[in-house]
Amino acid sequence: MRTRVGIIGAGPAGLLLSHLLHRRGVESVVLENRSRDYCEQRQRAGVVEHGVAEVLRESGVGSRMDTDGLVHHGIELRFDGRAHRIDFPGLTGRDVMIYAQTEVVKDLIARRLADGGQILFGAKATSVEDVETDSPRIRFERDGEADVLECDVVAACDGFHGIGRRSLPSGVARTFDKVYPFSWLGILADVAPSCEELIYAHSERGFALHSMRSPEVSRLYLQVPNGTDPADWSDERIWDELSARFALRDGDWTLERGPITDKSITPMRSFVTEPMRHGRLFLAGDAAHIVPPTGAKGLNLAMHDVTLLAEAVAAWDEKGDTALLDSYSDDALRRVWRAEHFSYWMTTLLHRDPEGGEFDHRLQVSHLNRIAASTAAATELAENYTGIPLV
Amino acid sequence: MRTRVGIIGAGPAGLLLSHLLHRRGVESVVLENRSRDYCEQRQRAGVVEHGVAEVLRESGVGSRMDTDGLVHHGIELRFDGRAHRIDFPGLTGRDVMIYAQTEVVKDLIARRLADGGQILFGAKATSVEDVETDSPRIRFERDGEADVLECDVVAACDGFHGIGRRSLPSGVARTFDKVYPFSWLGILADVAPSCEELIYAHSERGFALHSMRSPEVSRLYLQVPNGTDPADWSDERIWDELSARFALRDGDWTLERGPITDKSITPMRSFVTEPMRHGRLFLAGDAAHIVPPTGAKGLNLAMHDVTLLAEAVAAWDEKGDTALLDSYSDDALRRVWRAEHFSYWMTTLLHRDPEGGEFDHRLQVSHLNRIAASTAAATELAENYTGIPLV
Repeated sequence: MRTRVGIIGAGPAGLLLSHLLHRRGVESVVLENRSRDYCEQRQRAGVVEHGVAEVLRESGVGSRMDTDGLVHHGIELRFDGRAHRIDFPGLTGRDVMIYAQTEVVKDLIARRLADGGQILFGAKATSVEDVETDSPRIRFERDGEADVLECDVVAACDGFHGIGRRSLPSGVARTFDKVYPFSWLGILADVAPSCEELIYAHSERGFALHSMRSPEVSRLYLQVPNGTDPADWSDERIWDELSARFALRDGDWTLERGPITDKSITPMRSFVTEPMRHGRLFLAGDAAHIVPPTGAKGLNLAMHDVTLLAEAVAAWDEKGDTALLDSYSDDALRRVWRAEHFSYWMTTLLHRDPEGGEFDHRLQVSHLNRIAASTAAATELAENYTGIPLV
Repeated sequence: MRTRVGIIGAGPAGLLLSHLLHRRGVESVVLENRSRDYCEQRQRAGVVEHGVAEVLRESGVGSRMDTDGLVHHGIELRFDGRAHRIDFPGLTGRDVMIYAQTEVVKDLIARRLADGGQILFGAKATSVEDVETDSPRIRFERDGEADVLECDVVAACDGFHGIGRRSLPSGVARTFDKVYPFSWLGILADVAPSCEELIYAHSERGFALHSMRSPEVSRLYLQVPNGTDPADWSDERIWDELSARFALRDGDWTLERGPITDKSITPMRSFVTEPMRHGRLFLAGDAAHIVPPTGAKGLNLAMHDVTLLAEAVAAWDEKGDTALLDSYSDDALRRVWRAEHFSYWMTTLLHRDPEGGEFDHRLQVSHLNRIAASTAAATELAENYTGIPLV
């Protein structure tokens, strides 16, 4: 088999890349280890930055998002028993879209298939070879058969545990990482959200986040110690703990409860690999970097990466100009580090550090009070959250 | 001996308090363990916030500051071999004044004595008693003789190691603290500053700060490990290390060298005690809180504390109204925690954490790049640095 761009992974990054390349007349093939059903069910992020929503819209895959998604004009910070709203349009002129990653994936798969795109589900990439030549190839297995995808460029959009990053020759990449001393216990519940916008809650008991999937489905998260077994958390214990962390001093708010349909643990990690390109192998999304979910940047960073990469490949395809391919890693990493810093900042602002003391807790409250009192501090949060325009 | 307000400590806090009370017609006596000469020679901070300069000016002790001080309209951040200026008036409408704390002390002592104020030098406070009654007293020793100062209010302005905070009954106060894994090696040198404004330098080798005392005297600081003996640092080694940390990528800057007249080590610590008042005993300045020097907030916080306290005592004296005395601790602590957070923020933004890794270093560079690129982020720094107006 042969194609122009071999893409590993049918997550949002690989699918959007394939879609954007198609619109520029560049052929690609997506290899995906899992089934289509599996890809369309994975529960992940749900906050789409203003600029990423624009990319989806302008490339013709935004119509269901615009119908079913919820435009959010702000978030609530809850701390010290009080609530403070961050007004996104007032501070930045931008909004965010609440639309689950899994829905983005469904839209992109449907569109690629309608456009005649090739997505090979159940195709497990086993190695990436000859990336330092003009003819790299991806070896893969499908239905028990070994096969090869010959291409001009390999895009590894195969996540943190994928083969893409591991195919870099040793000594080429430098990695940076941080593991946090806490995780998130996330639930999906069949109950209308108790709020219209996301609530980020700081409390002495730890962090909690109230999000939503739809007007009928709530998504909530609790900070828990690393190594927590969800089985130790009964539904009642989860609701009680969430209620305590979201409690307002004046008592004027109630968390509505409903049947919990899913419980899962999300570890908190920061990770970056540099460079994001070696020869004809390009890394994008989680294959190159991980952020803790607090800043809602994981999906958005992946989408930004492939937007840059599609533009770079198209410029090369159309004009033979390799400048954007050559600068892809540096260009992408500027935004990656901005998002890494913001995600770290939101995480350490809001979580209770089990190794920290009362001083750290008071600093967090002072910082949150400052964000509530200062236009500059609130704007800094809002600009990062809604997404800083590409430079 | 009897007075209305007994003040322990003739540092800037105790002296300004005595001066402001005098202007409101309230009598006080200052007890100071050390000699006048010693008080007038102590080398400390040198950045006076906009609002604190106004307090000195409006209370009639700002004339020498306005003649000899240097008005600074910004600072330079130096990182990744590049320089970025933070424009204070452009971002906040405010400036800072470079005027050494030791000069503020000279001005206040001269003015108190000219106004007939009582400052007892060489008077060592040994205990503070009966602060839960209406007649507290300070026992002290002077010239080998024990004596007592009877008063209505005791103001402990006697620093971190003073008797004031230690006189609080056990169980009354709660303390919060953090010790940093580095210190500052500070020098005074007889050489014109190599810059017109302060330079805060972030580098892989650690933090450095270029400040100045006058057009002829430079003040510089180097991050060093805790436990460093200044004797291990020859003059040449200090200048070489400073030059390396301030180096610009284009080489377009030279650090001028001169005779080093003083070397000292400053430990880095954050500390807060709550409340700052118990009965008739009021804590102000370093007696109640310590900040690492990076944000230049120590002197300024002390001045804000006693400005609040003088107003509170005067309101009580004039109208019998205790409302401001009762809210003194809460009012002061709001600013204290803001300054604690800002000082921690500046410190962790700029220093190399010996326990941190490359990820932390890259986050700092990303953060510094953001401050250089974003009006909101730069404004947040500038507002805190020049001083947030009292609320």
